[in-house]
Amino acid sequence: MLSSAIAGLKSGRFVIVYDGKHREAEADLMLHASFATPKKIQLLRRDGGGLICFATSKEIGNEMGLRHLSEIFLQHSPTKKLVIKRTPYGDEPAFSVSLNHRGTYTGITDNDRSKTILELGRLIARNNGISAALQQQFYAPGHVPILIARDIAKRKGHTELAVRLCELAKLPPSMVICEMLGNGTALPLKDAKKYAEKNKIPFIEGAEILEG
Amino acid sequence: MLSSAIAGLKSGRFVIVYDGKHREAEADLMLHASFATPKKIQLLRRDGGGLICFATSKEIGNEMGLRHLSEIFLQHSPTKKLVIKRTPYGDEPAFSVSLNHRGTYTGITDNDRSKTILELGRLIARNNGISAALQQQFYAPGHVPILIARDIAKRKGHTELAVRLCELAKLPPSMVICEMLGNGTALPLKDAKKYAEKNKIPFIEGAEILEG
Repeated sequence: MLSSAIAGLKSGRFVIVYDGKHREAEADLMLHASFATPKKIQLLRRDGGGLICFATSKEIGNEMGLRHLSEIFLQHSPTKKLVIKRTPYGDEPAFSVSLNHRGTYTGITDNDRSKTILELGRLIARNNGISAALQQQFYAPGHVPILIARDIAKRKGHTELAVRLCELAKLPPSMVICEMLGNGTALPLKDAKKYAEKNKIPFIEGAEILEG
Repeated sequence: MLSSAIAGLKSGRFVIVYDGKHREAEADLMLHASFATPKKIQLLRRDGGGLICFATSKEIGNEMGLRHLSEIFLQHSPTKKLVIKRTPYGDEPAFSVSLNHRGTYTGITDNDRSKTILELGRLIARNNGISAALQQQFYAPGHVPILIARDIAKRKGHTELAVRLCELAKLPPSMVICEMLGNGTALPLKDAKKYAEKNKIPFIEGAEILEG
């Protein structure tokens, strides 16, 4: 239910968002970035298994001075021909650069990814001089991929759903998301639901968020 | 021991490489790309926990037409100021673009990452028209970060050690590598050794590879 997902997010709990069988048919674990402690990062890598990414809005992406990697790679001749216009599930990728906070060491440990994500969340919450602060406090290439939402009318992926959930919860657009993987494939829907139930995590489908 | 690491790699087993306490002080699980089945990818994400990357040599990187992300980002004004020259452990990052094979769906599942890695390995083993084949068969941005070795005289990271191991084993330079994570930090050295012993995985330090 949408209301329990919103309440969960506000109180620093995980939610699981399933995009729908006509898209990736994938359940992602999500958590508002302001609650991304090292223990939560550890849970994401153990129980999720996918990439631990930081999703934000188009507006914040612009304020940060970031672009989608597709756009960057298109401007650069050795990578131009590798850029995909539409992924097999029909959308352009949401990937922007990957970042590390300058206070991290390798960038990949639970402590380091937590630091990068918490500080990105703080930067966005403060919402003042974001671009300069980003350059001072973070570097690329790092270990936390930034996902920038596209227009939700055109793309209804986990990135856009995450940002919409933040809006509905009246939280700054800063969400940690990680794909839930199963045995070789995406974690099957029924197993994602079972996991949510067992761990008392709100489970929600993309359509409910879009109608919310 | 170097000889058992080389024998292990040739027969499709994992090896663990510890870079040394003066660098990242990190143990990485490694496997030659030609053996990267979905089950092996699953083990990497479960027992490693870091990023599952594909490491190759400078020469192959050049033949592929790929560049380090640092170089790409430096040519692009919005990201220029984010690029780091030296990470906290003293090296430039080895990251190039992240790729998916065009035959994958989301790109992140064990099956999909296995396909991307196996096919990259095949491309490199064939060693003929690599750049055109790369553009035909793969796309960016994807879910498998490519790491391109720098000069081993200057950088002695897991990427360079992986490529050197391939050379010593007379295998094409195609290695899957993943950081082993512990509780918040890198997996402590003694725990990495214990894991290696328990699972009969050759454990080797960077210095042994450099002397080999």
